[in-house]
Amino acid sequence: MKAELLYEGKAKRVYKAEGKPGQLVLSYKNDATAFNGEKKASFTGKGRLNNEISSRIFPLLKENGIDSHFIERLNETEQLVHQTKIIPLEVVVRNLATGSITRRLGIEEKTAFTPPMIELFYKNDDLGDPLINDQHALFLSDVKVSELEEIKAKALLVNEQLRRIFDGVNVTLVDFKLEFGRLNDGSIVLADEISPDTCRLWDSGTQEKLDKDVFRQGTGDLLEVYQEILTRLEAVS
Amino acid sequence: MKAELLYEGKAKRVYKAEGKPGQLVLSYKNDATAFNGEKKASFTGKGRLNNEISSRIFPLLKENGIDSHFIERLNETEQLVHQTKIIPLEVVVRNLATGSITRRLGIEEKTAFTPPMIELFYKNDDLGDPLINDQHALFLSDVKVSELEEIKAKALLVNEQLRRIFDGVNVTLVDFKLEFGRLNDGSIVLADEISPDTCRLWDSGTQEKLDKDVFRQGTGDLLEVYQEILTRLEAVS
Repeated sequence: MKAELLYEGKAKRVYKAEGKPGQLVLSYKNDATAFNGEKKASFTGKGRLNNEISSRIFPLLKENGIDSHFIERLNETEQLVHQTKIIPLEVVVRNLATGSITRRLGIEEKTAFTPPMIELFYKNDDLGDPLINDQHALFLSDVKVSELEEIKAKALLVNEQLRRIFDGVNVTLVDFKLEFGRLNDGSIVLADEISPDTCRLWDSGTQEKLDKDVFRQGTGDLLEVYQEILTRLEAVS
Repeated sequence: MKAELLYEGKAKRVYKAEGKPGQLVLSYKNDATAFNGEKKASFTGKGRLNNEISSRIFPLLKENGIDSHFIERLNETEQLVHQTKIIPLEVVVRNLATGSITRRLGIEEKTAFTPPMIELFYKNDDLGDPLINDQHALFLSDVKVSELEEIKAKALLVNEQLRRIFDGVNVTLVDFKLEFGRLNDGSIVLADEISPDTCRLWDSGTQEKLDKDVFRQGTGDLLEVYQEILTRLEAVS
């Protein structure tokens, strides 16, 4: 199914889909990176876990009216998606304060944000993905004012649905990062992946971290906690 | 006129005004600091120059409908102002890209921003005055959504008036930083100072820097260029 390699990112490779114009194959890698690529490692099985998790979440969002680039899971580590032009914005939604925002703004760990805090980062490795404001986002991308509002509204809707999904498996959705892409017809849909690489997920009872923070902070077994997330999701989807 | 010292900042001391409740004496210091206080020096006469410049600009803004805390110039280095509770936001307006934004976002030097770019920074020395977005500003201060809109609209109005003033003396207003304060009645007015410490000012012909960048970058005589700004303003006000 894979044809020409179009792009290799830190966690995925992107191929043209053989004989399917306008479609791509996303191949999930086993690599984990943190701190803008400064910390790196490989975990056999990580690609499969993130592909499986992402391939369960996108359809659940779709059932609730949230379109994404996702078409179907192809095999253990690959999924078929609609080709989009990725918008160079990382859209972060935070329900509870942890990580960079606590250090950057002096906000106490676990402070609840009501409404959820939305942050935009300029997707640019050379610049270290800096935080930006709305006006920067309009200047640095091709999105219009109304589209930026639409992206933020969609991010909040994704938050609601993900919280519902994860609450159902006793997991607290602390925060997450989304990316959006533009389809050929100009419309904007959710893209990239939704996985423990891109979400902070805590066991709602024990507060145990079930996400990439165990790798960032060296406090746990990445494969074990990603498998735990998959196992819990399998029970409900 | 000065009573109790209330606060000492990097560039000014703030005193209660003797016998004038609700009013303060701002005393401009000779100290110059840059890079969040890492570079420091003292220039005899700087306090006088900034007081004189600020004491000319605030009335010019007032004539054009922009209220501020400014009441009157008291003497060479002091002015009388209304007491406000300073809102912990630094409101930066940029007409041309230079300084931190070029490095932070990879924007080419002298790129024109139309409309002008507004940036908010959280006024917090310990955190290094970090860039924030609107939602952060609402979370970190007591301003309401409508008040933040009002602050940004007022910043653009100040920009228009300052550009008119400086264009008239052959000076290009590149960017500037404003602070706002809340009066006793709850209303928000322009506060702090407007001077070559807080504005980037370039000679419109030679592009020579006539502001604190000569100190930041060690490329010129601070007193000489601040005096040049005052001399040009004296010719028109």
